[in-house]
Amino acid sequence: MTSLRVFVGPDAEPEIVDAVRAGGGTPADGAGAADAIVWLGAPDALVPLLHDGVRWVQLPNAGVERWLEGGLIGGASGDAAGGAVAGGGAERVWTSAAGAYADTVAEHTLALVLAGLRRLPECARAQAWDRSLEGRSLRGATVAIVGAGAIGRALIGLLAPFGARVIAVTLRGAPVPGAAETLPAARLAEVWPRADVVVLAAPATDATRHVVDTAVLRALPSHAWIVNVGRGALVDTDALVQALAAGEIAGAALDVTEPEPLPSDHPLWREPRALITPHVANPDAAIHTALAAFVADNVARRREGRELRGVIDVARGY
Amino acid sequence: MTSLRVFVGPDAEPEIVDAVRAGGGTPADGAGAADAIVWLGAPDALVPLLHDGVRWVQLPNAGVERWLEGGLIGGASGDAAGGAVAGGGAERVWTSAAGAYADTVAEHTLALVLAGLRRLPECARAQAWDRSLEGRSLRGATVAIVGAGAIGRALIGLLAPFGARVIAVTLRGAPVPGAAETLPAARLAEVWPRADVVVLAAPATDATRHVVDTAVLRALPSHAWIVNVGRGALVDTDALVQALAAGEIAGAALDVTEPEPLPSDHPLWREPRALITPHVANPDAAIHTALAAFVADNVARRREGRELRGVIDVARGY
Repeated sequence: MTSLRVFVGPDAEPEIVDAVRAGGGTPADGAGAADAIVWLGAPDALVPLLHDGVRWVQLPNAGVERWLEGGLIGGASGDAAGGAVAGGGAERVWTSAAGAYADTVAEHTLALVLAGLRRLPECARAQAWDRSLEGRSLRGATVAIVGAGAIGRALIGLLAPFGARVIAVTLRGAPVPGAAETLPAARLAEVWPRADVVVLAAPATDATRHVVDTAVLRALPSHAWIVNVGRGALVDTDALVQALAAGEIAGAALDVTEPEPLPSDHPLWREPRALITPHVANPDAAIHTALAAFVADNVARRREGRELRGVIDVARGY
Repeated sequence: MTSLRVFVGPDAEPEIVDAVRAGGGTPADGAGAADAIVWLGAPDALVPLLHDGVRWVQLPNAGVERWLEGGLIGGASGDAAGGAVAGGGAERVWTSAAGAYADTVAEHTLALVLAGLRRLPECARAQAWDRSLEGRSLRGATVAIVGAGAIGRALIGLLAPFGARVIAVTLRGAPVPGAAETLPAARLAEVWPRADVVVLAAPATDATRHVVDTAVLRALPSHAWIVNVGRGALVDTDALVQALAAGEIAGAALDVTEPEPLPSDHPLWREPRALITPHVANPDAAIHTALAAFVADNVARRREGRELRGVIDVARGY
């Protein structure tokens, strides 16, 4: 159990400062004397504040590809174990907020899944009573969760009472609790033809870029819905536009897009079987509260020398 | 354990005839020699088939106000216990399919609740990326279920993993499993100001007509959503249109309307915070399967002299 001076910046958000105290840390007035930084701003403004004494940086995002692209998080973050850093070492641990927002994002995901199956986008746009707008039930459906991390696990909990069958896909295929099956990413090709609903919740990495492309869209059943709450880059958007127009899949509900924001003249806005939500699965109103709980937990872990949550692995890409 | 000859009409739907057998009954070729009728058609065509030997009629609908209005179900159905009829008596038991479709209707209900809170109708109609279309979470919300019968109980099961708080309202207030509180209909006035979401799942009776009126719409919080999956008559539609236009509530998602079907020139079609689904909570594709399970169960109950499910009480009105 060690003392830990934590700077919360660029602004000292009261809820996060309180979380530092709740975790047993000491809020620092500036970065100069801090052992750790909880950074709520953009990468550029953080750079001048980093010094050798800062051994841990907590970022506010669940997805950190924008931080990795800048090269700010270097090889030193290879301290993947995330334990207490030995005195004098140069290692600096970076943690994302991966998992902090899992419950609320999973809720939005289920909202999109049900909206798709029940044809709510078409109903919302209808201007007349049309009984042909009858949907399908989630009961007995097969839901493939591609990238079954914290969001996927939270979603499995929400899906349980529906009697849906979950196929979880993770990098290495280690069994995910509550899933009927877990497959490694290498076996994704087996998953597509079996999926009534595909939920994309993977991080954006070189390996996951355009994991849904023309071939995958053809492999899916024609009644399948794609729901993307991960990152826009997981889907080849042009291929999706073509597949929807051709009726190769039943629809797509996207909280994230590529490009993002989706330009107003993009054809997806006029596709009847597409539903776009503007990256709001995790509403701003919920962010500070969820992040505060995450920060309090990580501060306590750091003080006690336990493994941190959300340690960023540069080689892995998240 | 008695033999039971059951006529399935007007058409001998194979799935329902199989259900009669599954319940231990004997399918009858016509109504003449039948002890019971499972009637899948309109009231008028049933009348000429009824004779004293028909002691039980199973209807395919969960809501039976249209059958009660015609006066076809008379005082004799006061055999509300629904047990085996004593030989020679004139009593005829009528049963609805109340509860048969609860799971699929509850699923549609949750789809509407989440769509409302997450502002999916507005997103579906948007033609541009608008981050202000950020919704609310169901987590920690209070959901009032007015008429917490089979659909309400199924919905409570689906809501459980969200950490929502359920206030169930039933006619007499007998505790509903899984609800944080159950109140009798007489105390409805206490419920409105506390509800973040109101789910209407009550039958249409004189007592429930316009249970949501101008006064109720003013008593609800301005962020509240109303979701009606019961019957259109539960809501004073004109009052709802005014309340939505005035921003007195956040929105309304309606699978049933008054009038129904909702005419194309009705203002609700153009109300940005209304979502209308055309009475499809229970998709046709799911009806025969769900009804078959219900019929098999009731045939077995009838043969064994046990209480039937869905016995219609004329005085009560459902």
